[in-house]
Amino acid sequence: MNTYQSSPDRYFDPDPAQRKAALTLYESIADLPLICPHGHVDPRLFADPDYTFGSPVELLIIPDHYIFRMLYSQGIPLEKLGIPRADGSETETDHRQIWQIFADHFYLFSGTPSGTWFMDELYSVFGITEKLTGTNAQAIYDQIDDKLRSPAFRPRALFDRFGIETLTTTDAATDSLAHHQAIKDSGWHGRILPTFRPDAVVNLDTPNWRSEIDKLSAVSGMDVTNYTAFVQALENRRAFFKQMGATATDHAALTAYTNRLSDAEADAIFQCALKGDAAAEDAARFTGHMLMEMARMSIEDGLVMQLHVGSFRNHNPAIFEKFGKDMGADIPLVTEFTEAIRPLLTAYGNHPEYNLILFNLDETTYARELAPLAGHYPAVKLGPPWWFHDSINGIRRYFDQVMETAGLYNTAGFNDDTRAYLSIPARHDVWRRASADWVAGLLVRGIVDETDAQEMMRALAYDLAKRAYKL
Amino acid sequence: MNTYQSSPDRYFDPDPAQRKAALTLYESIADLPLICPHGHVDPRLFADPDYTFGSPVELLIIPDHYIFRMLYSQGIPLEKLGIPRADGSETETDHRQIWQIFADHFYLFSGTPSGTWFMDELYSVFGITEKLTGTNAQAIYDQIDDKLRSPAFRPRALFDRFGIETLTTTDAATDSLAHHQAIKDSGWHGRILPTFRPDAVVNLDTPNWRSEIDKLSAVSGMDVTNYTAFVQALENRRAFFKQMGATATDHAALTAYTNRLSDAEADAIFQCALKGDAAAEDAARFTGHMLMEMARMSIEDGLVMQLHVGSFRNHNPAIFEKFGKDMGADIPLVTEFTEAIRPLLTAYGNHPEYNLILFNLDETTYARELAPLAGHYPAVKLGPPWWFHDSINGIRRYFDQVMETAGLYNTAGFNDDTRAYLSIPARHDVWRRASADWVAGLLVRGIVDETDAQEMMRALAYDLAKRAYKL
Amino acid sequence: MNTYQSSPDRYFDPDPAQRKAALTLYESIADLPLICPHGHVDPRLFADPDYTFGSPVELLIIPDHYIFRMLYSQGIPLEKLGIPRADGSETETDHRQIWQIFADHFYLFSGTPSGTWFMDELYSVFGITEKLTGTNAQAIYDQIDDKLRSPAFRPRALFDRFGIETLTTTDAATDSLAHHQAIKDSGWHGRILPTFRPDAVVNLDTPNWRSEIDKLSAVSGMDVTNYTAFVQALENRRAFFKQMGATATDHAALTAYTNRLSDAEADAIFQCALKGDAAAEDAARFTGHMLMEMARMSIEDGLVMQLHVGSFRNHNPAIFEKFGKDMGADIPLVTEFTEAIRPLLTAYGNHPEYNLILFNLDETTYARELAPLAGHYPAVKLGPPWWFHDSINGIRRYFDQVMETAGLYNTAGFNDDTRAYLSIPARHDVWRRASADWVAGLLVRGIVDETDAQEMMRALAYDLAKRAYKL
Repeated sequence: MNTYQSSPDRYFDPDPAQRKAALTLYESIADLPLICPHGHVDPRLFADPDYTFGSPVELLIIPDHYIFRMLYSQGIPLEKLGIPRADGSETETDHRQIWQIFADHFYLFSGTPSGTWFMDELYSVFGITEKLTGTNAQAIYDQIDDKLRSPAFRPRALFDRFGIETLTTTDAATDSLAHHQAIKDSGWHGRILPTFRPDAVVNLDTPNWRSEIDKLSAVSGMDVTNYTAFVQALENRRAFFKQMGATATDHAALTAYTNRLSDAEADAIFQCALKGDAAAEDAARFTGHMLMEMARMSIEDGLVMQLHVGSFRNHNPAIFEKFGKDMGADIPLVTEFTEAIRPLLTAYGNHPEYNLILFNLDETTYARELAPLAGHYPAVKLGPPWWFHDSINGIRRYFDQVMETAGLYNTAGFNDDTRAYLSIPARHDVWRRASADWVAGLLVRGIVDETDAQEMMRALAYDLAKRAYKL
Repeated sequence: MNTYQSSPDRYFDPDPAQRKAALTLYESIADLPLICPHGHVDPRLFADPDYTFGSPVELLIIPDHYIFRMLYSQGIPLEKLGIPRADGSETETDHRQIWQIFADHFYLFSGTPSGTWFMDELYSVFGITEKLTGTNAQAIYDQIDDKLRSPAFRPRALFDRFGIETLTTTDAATDSLAHHQAIKDSGWHGRILPTFRPDAVVNLDTPNWRSEIDKLSAVSGMDVTNYTAFVQALENRRAFFKQMGATATDHAALTAYTNRLSDAEADAIFQCALKGDAAAEDAARFTGHMLMEMARMSIEDGLVMQLHVGSFRNHNPAIFEKFGKDMGADIPLVTEFTEAIRPLLTAYGNHPEYNLILFNLDETTYARELAPLAGHYPAVKLGPPWWFHDSINGIRRYFDQVMETAGLYNTAGFNDDTRAYLSIPARHDVWRRASADWVAGLLVRGIVDETDAQEMMRALAYDLAKRAYKL
Repeated sequence: MNTYQSSPDRYFDPDPAQRKAALTLYESIADLPLICPHGHVDPRLFADPDYTFGSPVELLIIPDHYIFRMLYSQGIPLEKLGIPRADGSETETDHRQIWQIFADHFYLFSGTPSGTWFMDELYSVFGITEKLTGTNAQAIYDQIDDKLRSPAFRPRALFDRFGIETLTTTDAATDSLAHHQAIKDSGWHGRILPTFRPDAVVNLDTPNWRSEIDKLSAVSGMDVTNYTAFVQALENRRAFFKQMGATATDHAALTAYTNRLSDAEADAIFQCALKGDAAAEDAARFTGHMLMEMARMSIEDGLVMQLHVGSFRNHNPAIFEKFGKDMGADIPLVTEFTEAIRPLLTAYGNHPEYNLILFNLDETTYARELAPLAGHYPAVKLGPPWWFHDSINGIRRYFDQVMETAGLYNTAGFNDDTRAYLSIPARHDVWRRASADWVAGLLVRGIVDETDAQEMMRALAYDLAKRAYKL
C-alpha cells in the first residue's frame, strides 16, 4: 500500500518542530487557487468540452519526455514506448505492453521528481492507492483507463477540480489562437490565456524559419520581406495576443547575449536569412538584438517578458533525426548573465514599465549573478527553478542560493512549465510543500517571525506569480 | 513584540541535540573580543572623541547600499531615499519621510542578512524590542534619535561596549592617515589600524588615475613619472603604513590574473597611462604584474596581502552617472583561479614569509579551486565568505564546500568588511552562531570530538583572524 | 578516549527518526563484501604472500599525499616528512621523528576526510582506541609497528578481513602485469584485476612519452612507428589486459574534449610527436581523437571505459621539480561536458555495447551537465564523487545534485580510488553511511517507501558498482 503519498507532512524536514511549522504553513495556503502563468498545455483540451485523453499511455507516457528519457537511458528503445517516428514508420502500438514496460521499470524513478509527481498523480487524481509494479500494472491500467472515460476526467471538469484560477499556454507568434477563440466563444468560465512566443521567427537558425516567416506574413497580413516589416508584424501579433488576453511573452535563447544592432545591420542579417545564408554568428547577434526590441515593445504594450537561456537543444542527433525535438535530449550549458545581459539592462533595466523574468538551467548563476541582478534592477524578477530543477532538492537549492541576496519579493513565485496537464496539482504541491518547509526553517531558526512567515508563505503560493505576470 | 532577536539559540539547526551543542559552543566564545581585520569604517569616527552619527537615516539608510539597493529594486527612486546626487542636485531631505518609506517596506528584508543585521542592531545596540513597521516607524525613529544624541553612542564608547580588540580600516595608498595619527595623538586606548589599498594607483583604468598618481607623488615626496619611481613610491607608502600600524594590504581586481612583465614592458604601459592612452588589455596586464610586485613587497616588509576578485563594479551606468559608485549595482562575475593565479603562486606561493588571503564572489571556486589551493600552498589562506555571502546560508555553504579540503586552519576566520560601524556586533554574531552550528553538526555526527570542537570554535571566533592578519 | 569512532550511528543526520532509519539501512548492508572497481593499490602487495608494509610512516605518511599536503600547507617542508627527493638527495629518515611531527599537527585534520579515514583506520584496523596526540605519538607508533610485523597484517590476510570481493588496480598500457600473473600463478583466491590505463602513450605531452612508446613497441611486439601501428598495439594490449581479467579501461584528460581526426591527420600529429615537436594544441586534439578510438575499441572488446577530467596536474613547479608528481599539488579546473563530449556521444552514446563512466572534479557539472547526460544517453553512467569529493559533504552534495535528474540507476556506485590499501574499509564505510543517511532522508520525508529504500541502499553499497564494471 502506497500510504506515503497520503501523508500530510510528506517532503518536510524530519525535525518535529520544523515539520509541524511547515505543516501549519502549508495548510494555511493549501486551498488557495493555482496560478499557472507559464506552461505548455495544449489549449485544444479546453476548446472542445468533450475532449478525452485517450489511453493511459497516450496521457502519461508518450507525451512525457521526463518519463521516457529515463527508460531510454537504461537502454529501452523509444520505439518500444510508442514514441512516434518522425518519418511515420512503425512503433509499438500495444499500449498495455508499453504500460507493462513502464511498470516493470518504475523503480528507476525512485527519488526522482518524475516518480514523485507520477505517484501523487495516481493517488490524488486517480485515487489509486497501490504503488505501480510489474504485477499490478494491468489492473492499474484498467483503473486509469476507466476513469479517463468518465465525464469527471474531461479537461474542463479537472480545471475546476484542480482549483486552477488562471492557466496560460505558450503559443507561436504565428498561431491563430483559434482554440483560445473557441474557448472564449464557448462561454466557459475557465481562464485560459495565451503567451506570445516568437522564437521560431526571431531565432534565424530555427529549422523551417523561412516557412515560419511566410506564416507570419499570412497571419499579420503584412509582407515580411525586410526587417522593418518584420518588427511591425511582431508588434501586430503582440497586439493581437494582448487582445486575446495575453499578459506575457516568452523567449528562449542559447545564451543571455543582448546587444542592439543598427536597423541597417539588422536588415542586412534579415535579408541574408531570407536568402537562406545567415551565418551562425549573425543569427546569434540577431537574437541578441531582437531581445532588445522585445524589451522595447514590452515597455510599450505592457506584456511581461520572460527569458529562458542555457539549453543545448537536441543534443543527440540520432534521436533528433528519428523522433524530432523534445525527446529528453536537451542538455544544459554553462551560462553567464552579468556581461551578456548588461546591454539590455542598461537600456531598459531601470524603466518602471519594464518587467523581465529570468530563468536558467545553470544553478551557479543563482547566487553569483541572478540574485544580485534581481536585488538591484527594478525591472528584473527571478523565475522559479526551471526544468530539471523544479524538484524537491532543486527548489531547496534555489531558496538557499537566491533568497538572501535577491529578497523574496524580487522572485516570481512558481510556474509548472508543463505539458502534462494532470501533473499540475502535483507540481504545485511540491512547490508549496518545499516553500512551507523553507519558511518553516526560517521560523524555527528565529530568522523570521510568524507574521512574516505567513506573508512569505502566501506570497510563494499565490501572490508573487499573480503579481509578476499581472494576472 | 520582536522576541526572537533575544532568543539565545537563534539561527541554530532545529534539531535539539545539535542546537544544544551549538549553544554550548557559542556561549564558550561569546565573550571573546572582536577581531575586525578588514573593513571600511571611517577612521574619522575615532579621531574626534565627540563624533556623532547624525540622524537615524544618516546612520542607517543613506550610507548602506545593502539597504537602499533592495528598496531600489522594488522601484523606489534613490532620490526619495536621500542618496546624494553626484551633481549635487536635490534629493529628499526629510529624514522622517525617508524612514517612513523604509519602515513601510521593511517586509522586503524578510529572510535577508540585511534584515537580520538590522533587527539585531535595533535590539542589541538600541534596545528596541518592537519590530519596525509602518505604524511604529516614527516612534522608533524617536527612540534611535534620542540614543544617538547621548554620549554612550559616541564611536569610542561603542568601541568598548562592542568589545572590539582591533579594528582595521581600508585606506588609499595616497591617504595621509591623518585620522589615524589623530587617534594615536589623542592617547585613546582603542586599536584602530590602517590597511594599505593601492587599487586607485595600481589599476590604470581607475577613474581619475592620473590625479591619483599626482597625489602619490605628493605624499611620497617622489616624482612618479616612470615605473621605477612608481614602485619606489609604493614601497615608501607601504613603509609609512606599516609604521602607522598596518599589518596588511588589500587589493581588488576584476580577475585573478597574474603575470610578471619585464620592467621595460611595465614602464611602457605606465608611460602610455600617463599620456592617458593605456589600452584596456594593457591595464589588465599591468594589474596582473603589480599583484606580483605586491607579493614581492609583502615578503620584504611582512604585510599580509589580501586579494579580492570578481566584482563587476558599477554595472548600471544610469545609477553610476547619477549617484556614483557603491550604489548596490556591483554584480559578481564568473571567476577562475587555478590558471590565473598560478604565476604568482609559482613565484611566491612556497615562500615562508608570504601570506596571501583570497576572497571571491563566485562560490563555485570554493570547492573546486580555493580549497585545494589553500590545502597545498603554504602562503595561501582563504578569507571568509565575502559580501553577498557573509549570511547565514552563505557561511554554511562556505563551511560545507571549503573545510573538508582546505582544512579549518588554512582559513582566515571572519571579517565584517563593513562601513556600517553599528552592524559590527550583529555581523560577528551571525558568523559566530553559524560557526557554532557547523561545529556542533560535526560533533553530533561524531566527526570531531568535544576537544577538537572547542578548539575549532575558538579558532573560528578569534584565533584564526588574529593569526592570519598578524594582529 | 576516542570513543566516537565506535559509535554505531556516526556521520548520520542528528534527527532521531532519520538517524534510526539510516542505521537500520546501514546495518542491512554492512556485511556485504566490498567491490573496489577503481583504485591504485600496488599489485605487488598481493604477488608476494609475505609482503610487509614497513614502518607506520612508510605505510601511512610517505605514500599519502592527502596527509602530507595538509602538513605542507602549514609550512612543514616535505623533506622533514621523509618524502623522497627526485634527485635522491637526503630527506628525513627518522620515522619516529616524522610520526611525531604528524601527531603534533594532527589537529589540522579536524573535520577533514583524511582525518576521518585515518581515525577509523587506527580504530578499526589497528584497534587503537586513543586519539593520536603529540603525547601518545610514540606509544601509538609502537602499537602500529607491532601489528605491522604480525602475519595478520600481510596484505592477503587483510584482503579477507576487509571482506573485499574484487579489487582492481590501475596499470599502464605498457605494464607486463607480472604481479597479476604472479598472483594468478600463486593459486591465491583473492580477485585482483588489472585496469588498462594508456594515458602515458595516448597523451603526447606526457613526460617521457617517447620512451613509453618504445616500451609499447617492446611489450606489444609491434614496431610503433606510425599511427596505424600505434592503434594496433593498443588493441593488442587491451586484448592482453582483458585476458588477464581486466573489465575496464581508465583515461585521464585535462578536458572532456573529443573529436575524431582523419587517420591521416592523426598520423601526421603522431609523426610530429615521434620527432619530439607535437604542438600543445595538436596533443590536445590527439587526446580528443584517441578518446573516440578508445570508445570504438570498448564497443568491440566490451571493456568499460572510464574518463576522468579536470585536474591541473603538478600545479606547483617547485614541488614537481624537487619531488615529482602526486605531491598534493594537483588543482581542479573549470570543466565543460555538454559541448566537449558531444562528438563522442554522437558517435557512440546510443550504442548498446558501449559503457562510459564519467568522473569530474568540478561539481557545478553535476546538476548542469552530468546528470542530464546520464539521464538520457544509454551509454553513460556517472562515477562517484571523485578525489577531493569522496567525503561526507562531497557525497551528500553529489546525491543532492545528481540523483533527481540522473536517477540512481544511472550511477556507478562507489570506488575508493586509493593507493592507501588500509584505508579501503574506512572509505567504503563513509560512502555506505552517507548513502544510508541519504536514503533515510528520502524515507523519512515520504519520498520513497521502505521497499525502494532497501533496494536503493543495496544498489549503492554493492550492486551498482558490480554491474557498471561488469564484475
